[in-house]
Amino acid sequence: MNRLNPDNLNAIEFCFEGIQKNILGKLKVVNNSQCNLVVDKWKREQGGGGKSISLEGKIIEKAAVNFSSISGKKLPSSSIASSSEINTSSGFHAVGVSVISHPHNPFCPTSHMNVRIFLEVGKNKVIKNWWIGGGFDLTPYHPSTIDASTWHNAAKDICDKFSKTFHKKFASQCDNYFYLPHRKEKRGIGGIFFDQLQHKSIEHSLDLLEEISKTYIDTYQAIINNHKKDKFSQDDRDFQLYRRGRYVEFNLLFDRGTKFGIESNGRVESILASLPPSVNWPFKLSPSIKAQEKKLLRFLNNNWDQHI
Amino acid sequence: MNRLNPDNLNAIEFCFEGIQKNILGKLKVVNNSQCNLVVDKWKREQGGGGKSISLEGKIIEKAAVNFSSISGKKLPSSSIASSSEINTSSGFHAVGVSVISHPHNPFCPTSHMNVRIFLEVGKNKVIKNWWIGGGFDLTPYHPSTIDASTWHNAAKDICDKFSKTFHKKFASQCDNYFYLPHRKEKRGIGGIFFDQLQHKSIEHSLDLLEEISKTYIDTYQAIINNHKKDKFSQDDRDFQLYRRGRYVEFNLLFDRGTKFGIESNGRVESILASLPPSVNWPFKLSPSIKAQEKKLLRFLNNNWDQHI
Repeated sequence: MNRLNPDNLNAIEFCFEGIQKNILGKLKVVNNSQCNLVVDKWKREQGGGGKSISLEGKIIEKAAVNFSSISGKKLPSSSIASSSEINTSSGFHAVGVSVISHPHNPFCPTSHMNVRIFLEVGKNKVIKNWWIGGGFDLTPYHPSTIDASTWHNAAKDICDKFSKTFHKKFASQCDNYFYLPHRKEKRGIGGIFFDQLQHKSIEHSLDLLEEISKTYIDTYQAIINNHKKDKFSQDDRDFQLYRRGRYVEFNLLFDRGTKFGIESNGRVESILASLPPSVNWPFKLSPSIKAQEKKLLRFLNNNWDQHI
Repeated sequence: MNRLNPDNLNAIEFCFEGIQKNILGKLKVVNNSQCNLVVDKWKREQGGGGKSISLEGKIIEKAAVNFSSISGKKLPSSSIASSSEINTSSGFHAVGVSVISHPHNPFCPTSHMNVRIFLEVGKNKVIKNWWIGGGFDLTPYHPSTIDASTWHNAAKDICDKFSKTFHKKFASQCDNYFYLPHRKEKRGIGGIFFDQLQHKSIEHSLDLLEEISKTYIDTYQAIINNHKKDKFSQDDRDFQLYRRGRYVEFNLLFDRGTKFGIESNGRVESILASLPPSVNWPFKLSPSIKAQEKKLLRFLNNNWDQHI
């Protein structure tokens, strides 16, 4: 693929739309097909658009499964890591799918996945540069070594399928990225995170993203199925609503995806669809919240990716 | 005041502690003295500390009334407006009080006030530069022209007492500052906002801050008293919980005070004590939320400060 002609762009978009469709289908199954959807097709003034899908069911309280394909003249600075020296004077095209799922049951973890491709396009639609990025991470509210092991084993297996060097690097990048410096806390148990990757060709790289998205949803589905009938108390629910605050803090204070979306004049309803349906920042932490938090933070500090 | 010796610093801190005490007292009265407090004295590793007070009552669901007095070697860049050219190589001392109040009744507006002084201190504790900043703004959930008029008249009166040039400038700065670009919305009906101000001497400037803080709490108290018994429906409450999301978005995405607190290694529990106790980002906006929002946004766009 040397030029980004309409056929090539269609092929790329088709791949990502397939990823969105597959994940949405599995999330429907998780909810026994009893869920409400809001499907929102949108166009961006400066070029491109997307399809944002929100889901609400008995198991998943709120999920956002968003596809976007946007183009423009100048790449926002937040699209690349700060250490990068990529020329941003060219036109760009960015296609991606991002998913965040907030389950109702506090024993079901919140999860996030993102896959994306950036293409720098010069004169005559020549592709001057391209790279892929993405990953997935899990944010539990209650410690489960089984879930942690399932999650990281799946991540390692899919990485190893493409390169034996990927997993260690991607897992460590995930831990670095999903860290809340103001709280000195990890967001969750991690997973994988990568950026500015060229895996052989564009075609091979899209394969990689597709496989990663499948691993993500299959593994998440299994974890949710294991916990969706777990009994929980009001204390457990209060703790979940309180810890969801950390998710909001991370997404609004630090997340580069959110920043990119806002800087690139993306659709704000889609960018912030990732925020939890209900969140508490309580006046005072109850003894139960304090105890649960202590337990959780000890668990999160375990570097689960190194235990497999 | 040419040097920041312990006596001078004590006098400054005494002024701000008085402001905190007065506001807290009035918020207690608003709650008929039936409220819970969490008082948290803290020290900062790099110098200084503070006293954070959170309040919870039947009328005020959560308020934070925070005093801090911190010092350091280097002034964080977020402490000054980006257009400024102030030398930040000196040591600094920053003393301030910030208040955010989230009432329970959706007809009672949320309010915010902040007063602060920055001092640049060189060798032998010589004060090389200093300035004050602050202001207050009101975030209603339901339109009330009476409240808007009460709020802005009080703001104008107190500004005029010090200088006839203040109000117009401060009101316009408030509108500019409390704007959510990603939503293209004003945060509320505004008020006043000023920064890098030297009003005659340090002593006169502290008077100004004290008077502003009194005007803020007296006016807010009157507005709350007018609405605290207003009847409201679940729809009204849902709308309030949804619109509180805007407050969170502003504070975490754009607020310089939050950024300064986090960059200067402030106490995160105090900085984020301003976040609302409960917030919703609903899966889908109900017809009632949509209708109330339309009405509110039309009201907020009225430039209330120019109507007095």
